[in-house]
Amino acid sequence: MTADATTDRRTTAIVDCDVHNALPDDDALAPYMPREWRERREALTHLSAVFRKVRENLGDRSYLGAEYPRPTPRASRVDSWPPDGGPPASDLEFMKTQLLDRWNVEFALLNPLFGIGEMLNLELAGVMARAANDWLAEEWLSRDSRLRASIVIPYEDPIASAAEIDRIAQDSRFVQVLVLSRTNEPLGQRKYWPIYEAALRHGLPIGIHNGGWGGHAITPAGFPSYYIEDASAMAAAFQAQVVSLVSEGCFARFPGLSVVLIEGGFAWLPPLMWRFDRAWSKLRTEIPLVDRPPSEIIRASFWISTQPMEEPEPPEQFAVLLDQLDMPDRLMFATDYPHWDFDAPDRAIPVRLEPALRTAIMRDNALALYGFDRDTRKL
Amino acid sequence: MTADATTDRRTTAIVDCDVHNALPDDDALAPYMPREWRERREALTHLSAVFRKVRENLGDRSYLGAEYPRPTPRASRVDSWPPDGGPPASDLEFMKTQLLDRWNVEFALLNPLFGIGEMLNLELAGVMARAANDWLAEEWLSRDSRLRASIVIPYEDPIASAAEIDRIAQDSRFVQVLVLSRTNEPLGQRKYWPIYEAALRHGLPIGIHNGGWGGHAITPAGFPSYYIEDASAMAAAFQAQVVSLVSEGCFARFPGLSVVLIEGGFAWLPPLMWRFDRAWSKLRTEIPLVDRPPSEIIRASFWISTQPMEEPEPPEQFAVLLDQLDMPDRLMFATDYPHWDFDAPDRAIPVRLEPALRTAIMRDNALALYGFDRDTRKL
Repeated sequence: MTADATTDRRTTAIVDCDVHNALPDDDALAPYMPREWRERREALTHLSAVFRKVRENLGDRSYLGAEYPRPTPRASRVDSWPPDGGPPASDLEFMKTQLLDRWNVEFALLNPLFGIGEMLNLELAGVMARAANDWLAEEWLSRDSRLRASIVIPYEDPIASAAEIDRIAQDSRFVQVLVLSRTNEPLGQRKYWPIYEAALRHGLPIGIHNGGWGGHAITPAGFPSYYIEDASAMAAAFQAQVVSLVSEGCFARFPGLSVVLIEGGFAWLPPLMWRFDRAWSKLRTEIPLVDRPPSEIIRASFWISTQPMEEPEPPEQFAVLLDQLDMPDRLMFATDYPHWDFDAPDRAIPVRLEPALRTAIMRDNALALYGFDRDTRKL
Repeated sequence: MTADATTDRRTTAIVDCDVHNALPDDDALAPYMPREWRERREALTHLSAVFRKVRENLGDRSYLGAEYPRPTPRASRVDSWPPDGGPPASDLEFMKTQLLDRWNVEFALLNPLFGIGEMLNLELAGVMARAANDWLAEEWLSRDSRLRASIVIPYEDPIASAAEIDRIAQDSRFVQVLVLSRTNEPLGQRKYWPIYEAALRHGLPIGIHNGGWGGHAITPAGFPSYYIEDASAMAAAFQAQVVSLVSEGCFARFPGLSVVLIEGGFAWLPPLMWRFDRAWSKLRTEIPLVDRPPSEIIRASFWISTQPMEEPEPPEQFAVLLDQLDMPDRLMFATDYPHWDFDAPDRAIPVRLEPALRTAIMRDNALALYGFDRDTRKL
């Protein structure tokens, strides 16, 4: 990268809504855990050595549902390994060089994918979530004013999750509650309601990020053979979550609840709204809390991150897609740094958009939703 | 219905690619079963009385994965119960009045949904499939020259399925091999390959019809609460099947293999092709048999039935959807008679199409694929 290129790119500030910072090593959270849990976890980790071979992050046991070989180590860009030898996105200084400074990132939202929400030992998951949030505050948010973070919760234990949201949301640098797209039950179900109540107490949206595994096959027809099948059909879990959250009446039960779909794409959403509206027109007696067409509720309640964007063939139809989606104030740019399918800010959008819409997607929509400052937060 | 209305509608002949004829009662197949199996099944049925309360059709045990209450009894149009008191679509004379004569149906393709492919007792499933096919030939195909049928197979036993295809495909009134969309493994996997080999031996397409349950949750996030969730997000299983059949190289391994997606909609397919092409451009080393963009393979290998069609808002965008799909010779009209979400031929397509395209969808595409006559069959 030349200095000139940097200067060019700095002319437009952007917000990056999906950055995955990493633990530098398996023991990074240990200083943030209570001593008795450090010791218990060391014992547990020893017991679970067989799982460590499969899961490189924590070694802590969870469902094993989607462990397909990734195209690159840690599914990361091959140039994203920092000079200190740690894993990609574990070194803030290198992240500054490669992402924050290079692309003139005004704010970057950290979505840590540590597998904590998927752990079967819910008590340990709660301890790890607290440690992860304290580590985020201390070692990331306090070291660069451009950083914001999602709250890590043990989402299969919603009561403990609500307590953790109440504890950590006092820190306004945490701007979202993070869950993954493959949960043990569809997210509309009442089990998860304490999470939404807690998020609303603090004006926080729920971010649903691609991934996870909740004990079920990753397709309704079982387990496919290849990672490419996972990467191509992963929208199925998001479809189930959108339909569940609406059908269970969550947006009537929890007015103001906002949900962000992260790394799920969105070209599948207009067809889903058409189907859902049609089904609702004939079957609405089944879900009386849904008192208007589901598409209206979806457009009023959901936000969407851009990476990975499905790119229509021919590219001109991208404008039609945006028109069908009809959520111009809800699309928010994301790079997915440091992952292999990183979207560079100058190439993420396949067509030339109206400048106002481009700025909305690249920056303003995220500022409006997240605020990035307690006083300006919309919710 | 007045005589005038009948005359009007008869001016354009159509082909209906998805009609669900029914067994008049639980014992209808008994005369077509070997005696020893009749006796065994009576005993099995007695044992499985608890399941009869859940599944009204056969009472034979299968996975119980998607038994949501339907909006109408037997999920059927309230006016579809024949005067003889039997269940909807069990009486050919009444079907003639309500469907074949009324809508000037040139050919109707019977897709019997008897739950046979989903049975856990694979040996009994094989016996039942043979009985069902013989019953179709004798009591339906021989009684009206407009009728054609899909071959019922015990698809979780592909070797037995191939034998049944070889046995029954001698009768050219059987024009398709029927499986359901929620299988025990994704349909591309090698377990199912004997079915495709047998279908190709006889020039028959594989029809994947919405439904079934293969032992897995109906979403990657588990079991939703409501039928409306099933009806809205059912495309997820089709997405998995399309991706699996392509990724496993089935269309390279079995040149000429044709697959019809029945009652799955299709507005989700362009976005899936965009995602799949994008993933393939970066991950193709994983699936070397896929040597061209997946969208090319999909457009060359798949056919699609119309019911239920997602209807874009605004309706004018239906033309854009057809343009994105770019499969004008692959869409085939279907009513889904006698089910509650029946599409009437005069109202199924939300916009005025070019007359040639309309005729292609309503009639000619199905004639070209199925032939409906051994000599003119395309495959």
